[in-house]
Amino acid sequence: MTDLGAVASALRQQAIELPSWAFGNSGTRFKVFARAGVPRTPQEKIADAAQVHRHTGIAPSVALHIPWDTVDDYAALAAHARDLGVRVGAINSNVFQDDDYMLGSVTHPDAKVRRKALDHLLACVDIMDATGSTDLKLWFSDGTNYPGQDDIRARQDRLAEALAAVRDRLGEGQRFLLEYKLFEPAFYTTDVPDWGTAYAHCVKLGDKAQVVVDTGHHAPGTNIEFIVAFLMREGKLGGFDFNSRFYADDDLMVGAADPFQLFRIMHEVVRGGGHLASSGIAFMLDQCHNIEPKIPAQIRSVLNVQEATAKALLVDTAALEAAQLTGDVLGANGVLMDAYNTDVRPFLADLRAEQGLDPDPMAAFARSGYQDRIDAERVGGRQAGWGA
Amino acid sequence: MTDLGAVASALRQQAIELPSWAFGNSGTRFKVFARAGVPRTPQEKIADAAQVHRHTGIAPSVALHIPWDTVDDYAALAAHARDLGVRVGAINSNVFQDDDYMLGSVTHPDAKVRRKALDHLLACVDIMDATGSTDLKLWFSDGTNYPGQDDIRARQDRLAEALAAVRDRLGEGQRFLLEYKLFEPAFYTTDVPDWGTAYAHCVKLGDKAQVVVDTGHHAPGTNIEFIVAFLMREGKLGGFDFNSRFYADDDLMVGAADPFQLFRIMHEVVRGGGHLASSGIAFMLDQCHNIEPKIPAQIRSVLNVQEATAKALLVDTAALEAAQLTGDVLGANGVLMDAYNTDVRPFLADLRAEQGLDPDPMAAFARSGYQDRIDAERVGGRQAGWGA
Amino acid sequence: MTDLGAVASALRQQAIELPSWAFGNSGTRFKVFARAGVPRTPQEKIADAAQVHRHTGIAPSVALHIPWDTVDDYAALAAHARDLGVRVGAINSNVFQDDDYMLGSVTHPDAKVRRKALDHLLACVDIMDATGSTDLKLWFSDGTNYPGQDDIRARQDRLAEALAAVRDRLGEGQRFLLEYKLFEPAFYTTDVPDWGTAYAHCVKLGDKAQVVVDTGHHAPGTNIEFIVAFLMREGKLGGFDFNSRFYADDDLMVGAADPFQLFRIMHEVVRGGGHLASSGIAFMLDQCHNIEPKIPAQIRSVLNVQEATAKALLVDTAALEAAQLTGDVLGANGVLMDAYNTDVRPFLADLRAEQGLDPDPMAAFARSGYQDRIDAERVGGRQAGWGA
Amino acid sequence: MTDLGAVASALRQQAIELPSWAFGNSGTRFKVFARAGVPRTPQEKIADAAQVHRHTGIAPSVALHIPWDTVDDYAALAAHARDLGVRVGAINSNVFQDDDYMLGSVTHPDAKVRRKALDHLLACVDIMDATGSTDLKLWFSDGTNYPGQDDIRARQDRLAEALAAVRDRLGEGQRFLLEYKLFEPAFYTTDVPDWGTAYAHCVKLGDKAQVVVDTGHHAPGTNIEFIVAFLMREGKLGGFDFNSRFYADDDLMVGAADPFQLFRIMHEVVRGGGHLASSGIAFMLDQCHNIEPKIPAQIRSVLNVQEATAKALLVDTAALEAAQLTGDVLGANGVLMDAYNTDVRPFLADLRAEQGLDPDPMAAFARSGYQDRIDAERVGGRQAGWGA
Repeated sequence: MTDLGAVASALRQQAIELPSWAFGNSGTRFKVFARAGVPRTPQEKIADAAQVHRHTGIAPSVALHIPWDTVDDYAALAAHARDLGVRVGAINSNVFQDDDYMLGSVTHPDAKVRRKALDHLLACVDIMDATGSTDLKLWFSDGTNYPGQDDIRARQDRLAEALAAVRDRLGEGQRFLLEYKLFEPAFYTTDVPDWGTAYAHCVKLGDKAQVVVDTGHHAPGTNIEFIVAFLMREGKLGGFDFNSRFYADDDLMVGAADPFQLFRIMHEVVRGGGHLASSGIAFMLDQCHNIEPKIPAQIRSVLNVQEATAKALLVDTAALEAAQLTGDVLGANGVLMDAYNTDVRPFLADLRAEQGLDPDPMAAFARSGYQDRIDAERVGGRQAGWGA
Repeated sequence: MTDLGAVASALRQQAIELPSWAFGNSGTRFKVFARAGVPRTPQEKIADAAQVHRHTGIAPSVALHIPWDTVDDYAALAAHARDLGVRVGAINSNVFQDDDYMLGSVTHPDAKVRRKALDHLLACVDIMDATGSTDLKLWFSDGTNYPGQDDIRARQDRLAEALAAVRDRLGEGQRFLLEYKLFEPAFYTTDVPDWGTAYAHCVKLGDKAQVVVDTGHHAPGTNIEFIVAFLMREGKLGGFDFNSRFYADDDLMVGAADPFQLFRIMHEVVRGGGHLASSGIAFMLDQCHNIEPKIPAQIRSVLNVQEATAKALLVDTAALEAAQLTGDVLGANGVLMDAYNTDVRPFLADLRAEQGLDPDPMAAFARSGYQDRIDAERVGGRQAGWGA
Repeated sequence: MTDLGAVASALRQQAIELPSWAFGNSGTRFKVFARAGVPRTPQEKIADAAQVHRHTGIAPSVALHIPWDTVDDYAALAAHARDLGVRVGAINSNVFQDDDYMLGSVTHPDAKVRRKALDHLLACVDIMDATGSTDLKLWFSDGTNYPGQDDIRARQDRLAEALAAVRDRLGEGQRFLLEYKLFEPAFYTTDVPDWGTAYAHCVKLGDKAQVVVDTGHHAPGTNIEFIVAFLMREGKLGGFDFNSRFYADDDLMVGAADPFQLFRIMHEVVRGGGHLASSGIAFMLDQCHNIEPKIPAQIRSVLNVQEATAKALLVDTAALEAAQLTGDVLGANGVLMDAYNTDVRPFLADLRAEQGLDPDPMAAFARSGYQDRIDAERVGGRQAGWGA
Repeated sequence: MTDLGAVASALRQQAIELPSWAFGNSGTRFKVFARAGVPRTPQEKIADAAQVHRHTGIAPSVALHIPWDTVDDYAALAAHARDLGVRVGAINSNVFQDDDYMLGSVTHPDAKVRRKALDHLLACVDIMDATGSTDLKLWFSDGTNYPGQDDIRARQDRLAEALAAVRDRLGEGQRFLLEYKLFEPAFYTTDVPDWGTAYAHCVKLGDKAQVVVDTGHHAPGTNIEFIVAFLMREGKLGGFDFNSRFYADDDLMVGAADPFQLFRIMHEVVRGGGHLASSGIAFMLDQCHNIEPKIPAQIRSVLNVQEATAKALLVDTAALEAAQLTGDVLGANGVLMDAYNTDVRPFLADLRAEQGLDPDPMAAFARSGYQDRIDAERVGGRQAGWGA
């Protein structure tokens, strides 16, 4: 039998990080639709993130993306976040939007471009120092579109050199999280296309190098929870970029496309102790709300992760292990499904009430008047977006 | 034995249509890289297309995209094309970039939006009338991102209504080509996701409704040549949007990712007589040259289609049929591979020389000075692109 | 608000057909593992199916597969089924296991092989006449492994001819269900690879020709519920072969791999009235229990379909439509998810109790002693299997 | 310019290993079609392999599969091979066909089963000692079909333990090659599903542990040549299991489905020096000739690898590097495509003639009378197959 008190206790510790860019406009190559109330500044993005935390109680930090969130005074930005009840989380680097990066950044054939890209990464560590952020998120769009375009192996050499330089720059208590992605924007090769590539580089670079799993970045049919379990066993899972997808890197709300997969992932997280704060695993959202309102979409996403986590914590691990060890295929599967099929929403509503939160965060936000207020206030200026 | 004279004769008839938008800037949601010399106007796009025809001899028409190619006087634009030695081809409609279309165009739940979208489609027929174009290309980005977002079936009813209205508006010698696409920009449902959907609508609407196969719009593992053969058997293949892909709708140069697949497609085309002008099948390119120079990329693409066609024409059909009918698996495959493994480039170079063309179109363009000229001339103004 | 009485009423009508072959041994090309108690005869398979119906109350028919279920007296077999409280369902033809079919059956280049295959199909209609079965299931493994091996288009001609002959043979109240499948055992082309192909043939052949959707037979990323909704709109959905898959045609228990997908499918079924007996849609299982005990696996599968149906019936359709029509993306999705997230197991347990069934069919079977009995009785003879 | 003498010299060194099981019957779970002349014994399989070598000159070794090739006296079998002009290559272990392995072999929850599996692996090393084989091929079908069925992480612990024990047993000059595979026969998790998993285990186990790339064992969209280049850079590519696929692990003839992919793979092999005998990379075929005659299919496969290698050797590496370093996307791609588009068959025919071989191995085999002889001689006995 599962101890519900322990489940509640674990859930009270949960922390999910929000991406500042989720509050800005996003879209596809076909169109970015603008929406009223969208932030114009990093400060406004943080305010929106704080609103999500206000209603959910489990989203205490917000990741920044440089240069989209460039400000003059990062310490002041961090103080602004604290004033709103949240803190600055991971710093996300961007070496894909400068014209120089058309054929790559740290893997570019031209050493000058590589140097420029590396300088940006190092500048991001400066921002970590200024904000107290501990995590540097590295995603490289680097790759090629046509066979022969560049030397696959030489690009790995260049990548390794850049990663080592970043690692060397990181201070005490800082680390980088290396993100892999199958494709897009590169269509033939991608220089960090899969977890194996990210893992191999990180193993060589030591404890400050960890792998981050973006749940939308795999080939069709990939078993993500296997990767999660494997990386945890190796001590190399640095965190998640949560979202969901039906096809490619759709960046839909986490749990929207395949809630059972999210549950299975969280089951492996719990199995490996990753839900404990001591694990050091960062649970981050990375989504694009192309057609839905952004703040409620973030609230819904946070709740989806929370619900999946609650279900994972409900698994009767003793019964599961007993069935597994005796080769009882249907019995073991049944134990897992019992937890998944449980409706945890009433339990979570009670948990929120205990903590002084509204039991229904979506409804509470709708009633709060926050959206109307920002729709009215945020007129003029330039709405935040990807600037692609 | 294959009759080389007949092969040459068939190749001399070949016509591949270029998309005006291939000469403008394109990219991904992450970044559109600008490039020197890119056209600012539909007229300049047509000039670039004419340059491709000048070197290849088999690209006599250019497709327009409305509103990207909106002009005041379409008859004048058509005359401009003729002056440059080419003609206006298919008119491509666009009902995906207006803010009203965020949740759909002709399938939108709101009748006002549907009406607006339909009006655009009908306006495109006006442009066909003005330019002498016979083909209206219909691609709908319509779909949903989240389960439950809209009623799948009601959207089909709305789609059917719009298609019927377009069909009714088409004049003598005009038709529409309905394009299907698995996903993007919609990520849960797409209203015309596969050839079966396009086919089912077109069958009901009669001869003016045909299916167009974009070679990048299928699920992984789809056998495209099967679809081509099937649609030809049904008399419903209106044309191709050629490009190539490794992952999703990558829009790379046709033949760049899987030249053997392109050959197999052309083999089915030839098998069904689709290479003859009388077939009415439109062979169009639809590509994005995100990182490579656009005019030579179009030349290369035209040559890739030509080479694949030449190989398909070289297949010893008598030997193939004999092997097939006797169940000689390796023999039949061997006949096909003999054609594919043949280096047709010398043969095509000779064919060009006979027609007064430079045998090496890529080199000829490089020597022509055209690129330097447009790089110098096309300064200022706003470069053409998708405007996303 | 959903009317729970109406939900219960609809669920009481539900009927799910079991495949006789699910009770026999199955496996992969690597190994078929034998299991105690497996039936040796069609009669024993039907007895096992009847046991599933005894515990679930909604599995009143069992599909036969010819020649795996060949008997001398089909009327007697039907009577045997009736005696056990079930009836004979669809007759599944098999034109893939004779040595003559190595290169195809009804699409084979050799007319003699085609004739043999057609004769088998017609013989299956004789069995329908003898058993009172109304549905003939047609699945063709026909296809090719290598490009050029056979003529794609000629094979469609041969297929069309065979289907027409079968249609002509069918009597009043009889129909065929044409099954499509992406690949396996053919690896280059499959002659009925997708719903579009099956649909196109069935449209031409009239009301006695319907499409069956096997949920494991699609390319990665295919939206199955779209196909279901589309075929229902066209009046061409004859039925389902339910199972689930992570990769290819894995034939796992329905609902085991993606329960949310099963729910979405059942949502479209309910949306189109397909859950009503009047719809004529056959809900069949088609699974391989390679490593799990077969009878409880069938019970679990029936329950999974029932649970997904119950959730689909719980959807607040008025609220859903209201949200859809106003473009409330998150609201509409939320209505659907509310139903999905509901734990319907207590409701279904009550429904069973009302009907005099044990509320927990899995536990009831475990307690029944049936498995021990057949393990002891079914010794000697040859266990049923695919005979591959 | 490429030095043709050097190309010829490299090609003369090439060695491709044949799998003994390719000469036996194989099929799918639906049917194994028998064929005349199929070997009944390991000795006959080796004779067929020797025939392939006789015609191609580059297939000097044959891999064994235990227990399919179990004999009393392995030294005698090795001598038999030498007498026929070939030698015994890799020993392939089989821990997937015993009833005990239904839920796993070295990862099974039961220690007794694990011990049995490990004992088999160690016995394979004994056969290596007896035959002089240096390579032990390890493929594990281990995995699970249902979520929760077993503990993903515990299975990795068990796997690591077994691999270490095998490594410890290997003698001087011996190594194991660990094969990964996405799925089949397991459908939910596979314990070595991807190159990253195989790599991570091999890195820890040192030089005697290497990764083998089976070209049919990846998720859709995987860039195999990237993996090849990456593993070569890490010194961890032990060899290839060549075959080709359109969908899953189709095991078609290498080069039949995507000859351009094979060329790209060989380009990376050559780029990394893997074509030199000193590289230690084993080039093996692993195919199933389900519907085509087996000996000519093996000849065709060997030729396909040879042709791809010849094209890869023809790449003008100086021109390629120059284009790559200057960011000339189309130029670099063009250099690669020039080599690919070259018809190397005449060059290879000349090379064979120089070596005293028939320039056309397929025709030479057809004329040899070998097939007629074995068809006549191999009557009675039990044809070799997988015994599934």
